[in-house]
Amino acid sequence: MSTAEQIRLFFEPESVAIIGVSRKTGPGSFNLLECLLDHGFTGRIYPINPNAREILGIPCYPAIEGVRDKIDLAVISLDRGQVPSSVEACLRAGIKAMIIVSQGFADVGGEGRTLQQEVRDLARAEGARIVGPNTMGVVNNFKDFTTSSIPLMKFKSPVSSICQTGIFITGFYSFTGPIGKAIDLGNTADIDFADVLEYYAVDENTEIIVLHIEGIQNGRRFLETARKVSPLKPILALKTGRTPLGAEKAASHSGSMAGKDFLYAAAFKQSGIIRARDSEELADFIKGLSCLPMPRGDRVGVLTYTGGGGIMAADRMVELNLHMPRLSPETIKKLSPFAPSWLPLGNPLDMWASAMKHGTQAMYKTFLQALLEDEGVDAVLCVLLSPRIPGLDFFDVSSILIEASSEFPTKPIVVWPYGPNLGELVEKLNSSGRVVALPSVERAIQLLSTLRERRRFLDLLHREPA
Amino acid sequence: MSTAEQIRLFFEPESVAIIGVSRKTGPGSFNLLECLLDHGFTGRIYPINPNAREILGIPCYPAIEGVRDKIDLAVISLDRGQVPSSVEACLRAGIKAMIIVSQGFADVGGEGRTLQQEVRDLARAEGARIVGPNTMGVVNNFKDFTTSSIPLMKFKSPVSSICQTGIFITGFYSFTGPIGKAIDLGNTADIDFADVLEYYAVDENTEIIVLHIEGIQNGRRFLETARKVSPLKPILALKTGRTPLGAEKAASHSGSMAGKDFLYAAAFKQSGIIRARDSEELADFIKGLSCLPMPRGDRVGVLTYTGGGGIMAADRMVELNLHMPRLSPETIKKLSPFAPSWLPLGNPLDMWASAMKHGTQAMYKTFLQALLEDEGVDAVLCVLLSPRIPGLDFFDVSSILIEASSEFPTKPIVVWPYGPNLGELVEKLNSSGRVVALPSVERAIQLLSTLRERRRFLDLLHREPA
Repeated sequence: MSTAEQIRLFFEPESVAIIGVSRKTGPGSFNLLECLLDHGFTGRIYPINPNAREILGIPCYPAIEGVRDKIDLAVISLDRGQVPSSVEACLRAGIKAMIIVSQGFADVGGEGRTLQQEVRDLARAEGARIVGPNTMGVVNNFKDFTTSSIPLMKFKSPVSSICQTGIFITGFYSFTGPIGKAIDLGNTADIDFADVLEYYAVDENTEIIVLHIEGIQNGRRFLETARKVSPLKPILALKTGRTPLGAEKAASHSGSMAGKDFLYAAAFKQSGIIRARDSEELADFIKGLSCLPMPRGDRVGVLTYTGGGGIMAADRMVELNLHMPRLSPETIKKLSPFAPSWLPLGNPLDMWASAMKHGTQAMYKTFLQALLEDEGVDAVLCVLLSPRIPGLDFFDVSSILIEASSEFPTKPIVVWPYGPNLGELVEKLNSSGRVVALPSVERAIQLLSTLRERRRFLDLLHREPA
Repeated sequence: MSTAEQIRLFFEPESVAIIGVSRKTGPGSFNLLECLLDHGFTGRIYPINPNAREILGIPCYPAIEGVRDKIDLAVISLDRGQVPSSVEACLRAGIKAMIIVSQGFADVGGEGRTLQQEVRDLARAEGARIVGPNTMGVVNNFKDFTTSSIPLMKFKSPVSSICQTGIFITGFYSFTGPIGKAIDLGNTADIDFADVLEYYAVDENTEIIVLHIEGIQNGRRFLETARKVSPLKPILALKTGRTPLGAEKAASHSGSMAGKDFLYAAAFKQSGIIRARDSEELADFIKGLSCLPMPRGDRVGVLTYTGGGGIMAADRMVELNLHMPRLSPETIKKLSPFAPSWLPLGNPLDMWASAMKHGTQAMYKTFLQALLEDEGVDAVLCVLLSPRIPGLDFFDVSSILIEASSEFPTKPIVVWPYGPNLGELVEKLNSSGRVVALPSVERAIQLLSTLRERRRFLDLLHREPA
């Protein structure tokens, strides 16, 4: 079995044994079986509990030995002391994939670390694979499958994640956006990032890969795998434990060796992994890579209602090596009739006076179109006053933005809207899947820069001799 | 008249002349008089328009000379060529305060710059003061007064701002939060930051001062004034035009000389001004300074449902010189009965296992209280799973947080909530005025660090010999 096939068992099992299911159900019980049923899983389920005949209508077995079926995956949620014998029982039953939910292993150090090695060695000797310990396990919304003990929302999103903490699964995607598949490696005793990357690389449901990394065991193998995968599917990474204290805390969380941050930085760069500095940036990048084209160059046209916003944009663009080119004479010629004679039109393109005089709707269409038609412009940033208050509806230019993005599919449009009650507008723009709205001009420009970097990475690959 | 009294005329006029009111009214007309009436202003208003007898029911005058009343403030909104003669007429009428809304002065350079100097010299010769040109003017929600040509929301907030672009007024406070008073200096031909600081310093409605700076003309005077004011009321600054390109764009926006950024950085530090790096940080700091106590030391206790979040917190704390102290033996003793025997309790304080076993509500109260009671802890960061989805209401610990903040009024509590549908929870926490919730752990820690810096600044002042 290839690595990808081994990992597939964890995401697409047809039969699952859940060892250590509680009889307690309902809100606050964190019952793994209940969550799995609620998620709509239609595969065969075997709860193991010597004290129950059935739980939630599913017949229970006193021990794994009692199950006659072939089991693809075992999920073990027992006190840590019972885990080794349970793993042995699973191996005797021929199970090749195990998720160990239980805590108290390398995450607490000492005896726990020894116990973890013992369990891993048992599995390896039989060619079986382990996820965890100390994990929420797996989510696969394409097969209605989850091992989370917290009920999850179900999105069929092309974004798949690999993380070392349950927060990325149970955080309900508040800092990644909708996720279609996820795996929590926990203490990463056996299955590591490279293994899952091999599966995501060939998985047809996966288009974008997100990593939350505390520590990687085998750096060389990770690097080699990431270099193969990242030209095919963008890989984003949030690396935590980047400071000595953070690394120390990581050691006592997932038992990870966080390693020197500069080594990770170099590895990410070399393998084309896109690094996010924090959870907000991560969410921004995922949005951008999901729905925007990558700009062909670094020349950004800025359309703004406020000169002040244009200056804030200029500052961040300089810091991120993006350019604010002069607009072409044709563009200036197109727009001059709408601007006061004393106002020199430039980039940033300040359209406030024109909007005041000729109306926001008509002017927005005209200015945006002119900017996108300019051959010296690779991407557009819109700094947009968009108050949702009665009597100011004429400021809503979301339809104009969405239409323009269809008309100019090679040029990304990123929006920084400001004003009260932005929720509806942001939702409208972001749910269009064609334009991205972000809550600060700095974040909007950071996204354009990241898209530009991705494009440059791919262009360089194609230029390399075979 | 002192400078503060001169500036007070702009914020609290009893009689206002509006020169250049359009007859066009209704949505999209950007009519200054209409906005003023909608804002509820009850002072005397004199619209000047030679082509109208009345606008919106207010009698018009053909020229300022026709007004018999004493006028506190004139707002001039004419084509730039007509501005000098209008200023002359105002001066002849004895008006000492003028807001020049019109654009096309130093903001476009060349002839505009000459015109601006001419106008300023005219006013100075008569001891009159000018705000602008190129400005949205003034907002004072305590007197229902505004010169904005866009309808504004009206908050009686103790936060007052000084800016050089209308965005901070017409942006409807989306990146400052509610503002009670605001002034847009525009091209800053005459009235500068220091002038308005003198007014805000003695203004009883002002508790926090926010600056948006593109360029300051008289650096020394600004510094001296800020040093006097910042011990009394915190001053926050967003300095834009910090890169060469940004500075160039600032010159063509407000005609400002943005100057070397390191000089601003030094000046801010010396005078106790708190610098925000971007609009989101600015909003965070305002929230924090508005409602949280300043921590007495740099020792932060972290209460978390996720080890992963604790590591992210540790990274940022190291970068910002905050400490994550060991908890006291008493704290550990209080909490040990609720934690599994194999789990070492520490800081960050991971309470997931305890919440799973003993219930989130009871455990949250117990853990939070213990952390706040610990004498080695100056501030608390809560990393909080808070999904608003049916069946998971037991995760809502907002009331516990708000109660704890009353019980421990000297220790700031900052929350990073994650999960879906956070809007309601964040609103509940933030509107309590006692706890601040922010959208990333990094921003939460940055706020704690800024509050700590403010406290240190004040402590050092009090230690200085008289």
